[in-house]
Amino acid sequence: MSLYETTVPQFIKMLQNVERWLGKAEAHAKAKKFEVDTLLQARLAPDQYPLVRQIQSACDGAKFGAARLSGKEAPRNPDTEQTWAEIQKRIAGTIEFLQSCKSEDFEGADKRLIALPFLEGKLLLGSDYLAEMVLPNMYFHLTTAYAILRHNGVDLGKMDYLGSLKLRDA
Amino acid sequence: MSLYETTVPQFIKMLQNVERWLGKAEAHAKAKKFEVDTLLQARLAPDQYPLVRQIQSACDGAKFGAARLSGKEAPRNPDTEQTWAEIQKRIAGTIEFLQSCKSEDFEGADKRLIALPFLEGKLLLGSDYLAEMVLPNMYFHLTTAYAILRHNGVDLGKMDYLGSLKLRDA
Repeated sequence: MSLYETTVPQFIKMLQNVERWLGKAEAHAKAKKFEVDTLLQARLAPDQYPLVRQIQSACDGAKFGAARLSGKEAPRNPDTEQTWAEIQKRIAGTIEFLQSCKSEDFEGADKRLIALPFLEGKLLLGSDYLAEMVLPNMYFHLTTAYAILRHNGVDLGKMDYLGSLKLRDA
Repeated sequence: MSLYETTVPQFIKMLQNVERWLGKAEAHAKAKKFEVDTLLQARLAPDQYPLVRQIQSACDGAKFGAARLSGKEAPRNPDTEQTWAEIQKRIAGTIEFLQSCKSEDFEGADKRLIALPFLEGKLLLGSDYLAEMVLPNMYFHLTTAYAILRHNGVDLGKMDYLGSLKLRDA
């Protein structure tokens, strides 16, 4: 199974799921008559990132994961989003980058040696980078964003998290 | 990259991480003088599963994921855990099962057709089951358990979540 399959199409789908969560959050804010941007600063613990940073981190996780595994350059994002429209644009831009990553770019990705800016002098084998960092990290930020919205009363359920499945008839 | 690599050794490590989170939670309960079992019923939203069920679900996610992909029979767990000692035993039992799953059991797992009890009449290809269900679901329950503990003041950080990494010298 190629590293592309476990990441790119799945991350696109997950970010599209996030777009739908944001839609539901917007409807919730409207019904409860509060400014939806308030949710961007919501967090589950005072020393944990708020929603806006969880979404930025999920976007970064997907972007850097795909870029490092395929040897492409990741687009730069200065993390300046402060409004609902800005964070939606960030997600859309990330999806666009992921769509530019092709299956063939990931050939040999499992054997690639990956350098990380926060781990100076160290490298991770592509397959370890995928299993130990990219996947747990991506789903960490997605789930924390989901949990912040759930904690704030947004009407989300597990299928909003998982999204559509490639089901086949038995 | 085999489906074994993305799941079994990584899930063992993540469940060992959870064992350490529980140790930190126990120390926190002792310092704050509250009964640690109280945390098992903590949740982030009234209609979301509490900690005990998040951990049971993470254990199930790992167990069923590995069992279905390798064609092994999963051990049965009646989900009756109500104490700290019982949930620790559940985690240890799950790790033991995962350790019995060998790399060679996963040969051809990506092409296996997987039936799920809650999706009658439908099947998922092994590779789709891994990318669309096993991984997002496992990390969903792990992260939610982590978030519940963080929300309740347990001193955890991102490295407690990720655990050790297979770093190589550059």
